[in-house]
Amino acid sequence: MEKRIYNFSAGPAVLPEEVLLEAQKDLYALPGVGMSILEISHRSKTFDKIHQGAEEGIRKLLGVPDNYSIFFLQGGATLQFSMVPLNLMTVNKKADYIVTGVWSKKAVKEAKRVGTVNIAASTEEGGFKRIPTQAELKLDPTADYVHFTSNNTIYGTEWKTEPEVGNVPLVCDASSDFMHKKLDVSKYALIYAGAQKNLGPSGVTVVIIRKDLLERSSDDLHTYLNYKIHAENNSLYNTPTVFGIYIINLVTKWLLNMGGLDEMYKRNVEKAKILYDCIDNSNGYYIGHAEKDSRSLMNVTFNLRTPELEKKLIEEATAAGFDGLKGHRSVGGLRASIYNAFPKKGVEDLVAFMEDFRKRNP
Amino acid sequence: MEKRIYNFSAGPAVLPEEVLLEAQKDLYALPGVGMSILEISHRSKTFDKIHQGAEEGIRKLLGVPDNYSIFFLQGGATLQFSMVPLNLMTVNKKADYIVTGVWSKKAVKEAKRVGTVNIAASTEEGGFKRIPTQAELKLDPTADYVHFTSNNTIYGTEWKTEPEVGNVPLVCDASSDFMHKKLDVSKYALIYAGAQKNLGPSGVTVVIIRKDLLERSSDDLHTYLNYKIHAENNSLYNTPTVFGIYIINLVTKWLLNMGGLDEMYKRNVEKAKILYDCIDNSNGYYIGHAEKDSRSLMNVTFNLRTPELEKKLIEEATAAGFDGLKGHRSVGGLRASIYNAFPKKGVEDLVAFMEDFRKRNP
Repeated sequence: MEKRIYNFSAGPAVLPEEVLLEAQKDLYALPGVGMSILEISHRSKTFDKIHQGAEEGIRKLLGVPDNYSIFFLQGGATLQFSMVPLNLMTVNKKADYIVTGVWSKKAVKEAKRVGTVNIAASTEEGGFKRIPTQAELKLDPTADYVHFTSNNTIYGTEWKTEPEVGNVPLVCDASSDFMHKKLDVSKYALIYAGAQKNLGPSGVTVVIIRKDLLERSSDDLHTYLNYKIHAENNSLYNTPTVFGIYIINLVTKWLLNMGGLDEMYKRNVEKAKILYDCIDNSNGYYIGHAEKDSRSLMNVTFNLRTPELEKKLIEEATAAGFDGLKGHRSVGGLRASIYNAFPKKGVEDLVAFMEDFRKRNP
Repeated sequence: MEKRIYNFSAGPAVLPEEVLLEAQKDLYALPGVGMSILEISHRSKTFDKIHQGAEEGIRKLLGVPDNYSIFFLQGGATLQFSMVPLNLMTVNKKADYIVTGVWSKKAVKEAKRVGTVNIAASTEEGGFKRIPTQAELKLDPTADYVHFTSNNTIYGTEWKTEPEVGNVPLVCDASSDFMHKKLDVSKYALIYAGAQKNLGPSGVTVVIIRKDLLERSSDDLHTYLNYKIHAENNSLYNTPTVFGIYIINLVTKWLLNMGGLDEMYKRNVEKAKILYDCIDNSNGYYIGHAEKDSRSLMNVTFNLRTPELEKKLIEEATAAGFDGLKGHRSVGGLRASIYNAFPKKGVEDLVAFMEDFRKRNP
């Protein structure tokens, strides 16, 4: 069997080995079906069952209430940046956006094409090192919705709990920490997430929307951009990413077998602590980017004292089988992404490597 | 090894066995990479090479000239129905559409949201049994483009050669016969195709566009909907369907190994002839839906004298390992989709089955 390395990539990212092995087994022909998952019709009974399994898996893991639709789209969070305002900014034609990084800013850019955007808070000053406090949020009670980004891959920051927005619908781009812990979905109007971090391969996006919000979608919208159409057609208005939904089904089964999201969250806290402790106990050798109370459990971002030393560490780490540690090109430094499927052993091995590197390069 | 059956599905559809076996081998970990194709970054060198391979494969097979961009999107032909007018219906705000089936009509529906649609011809009267003649086309020389659907899966009709449109840019939805034969790409302004027939799994769409057309894309367009953005970013403005592009790369290599598209076309003609001969030599027992000179090489549609007999044939065929023969729910009857990867032996076996069925049910 081909050897696997430690994949710290921010996304597409590591998937559970059990899921890969099962997908591999079935790729030539699904047992009893005689066709590959890549070849079956999206209107077949075989796919119906897989599709239902993926939806039910998400519903069970997150405790999604019955008054929410779940569907699977294409186009990633990028298309959602447009679909959210096109569908929901239709009452007072204005919305609040909380800006905590590059992805929030991209969401703002598309929303401005549709209506008035109020920046309820931004932590750009100082380099997006933190999540704003509740007191900082300048919310408009007549906004059509409030949009926030639950986790910021580039900066390594994450909301510990969702912002309080009163009766205004809350919309969350959860692309990079979806399913890392249980949420109270009833606090949200809409959650969207590209699958390629915790849930599956790239090319499929999950949308969870409170059904009453669907009434906001105008019949004048282009069909693919209309949430109501996708909800009414249960993701089958057009051909969905069959393989992506198949992998999501396998991942949800894996999560349920592992004990669900409370267990997963416990593991995520443990894994992140090992790495943050290494940073905090390095006497300033490793410099965490995010402020402590805004730290992400998914993406651990840090610097060394010079870009040269960072480059050296990344090169040696890559050679030692720790891949994808280079920080995003817009901020530099290092980033270790440790999503659900990333093994604790990999974090421990990286920390051992980092401590050794520090000794060798004082 | 799991037994495979004959898959006559209209799409997602049969893929080459060689491609499935290679993808299966690499699904746990790409050799020398230590990560699955589902886990690698879309900005990695490994993916760069795969992505380039897929593009070059298409370029080589179709002979795509250098003044054309090729990129890979999400959202299927359905999103292209909107993106085409949003990007291209920007000069005189009108376009000609040739309507040869349900998919053309869906394209018209979205185009009408953007500007004025002139139906240059429609063969709906009589049930979309044929492709219009050149003489029938009422073309507007000042249209922003002419749109046609090269193959109509539901009705089993196909253009033998593209319509002559003078200097007006020609746009083709080639979703269901892309890569079944060589084209003179220079006759087209834009070709788009969902991959899930001849090219790969669902969830990835190929767009081939003449570069000068990109100047029509307004900066006011939503980013994901803007062809110019995708061309400038070489499909990497956001995370593409990595796995889909990987399979497209493998399929283009398979096509090149088979001898390219002229050889593939020869085989497609042979395969279709076997099935159409069976229909034509059945003394009216099997009734072809499409008029003879409009027959598709990809989707062979036919009826029996009663829906009951059709149902019986479908049931017996399914039990005998011929899957997916049921016609589209909108027209009924039978449909045998025999895309590039469908084996000649499967067509021969189906014909033997059909001849036997006819004897047993006179």
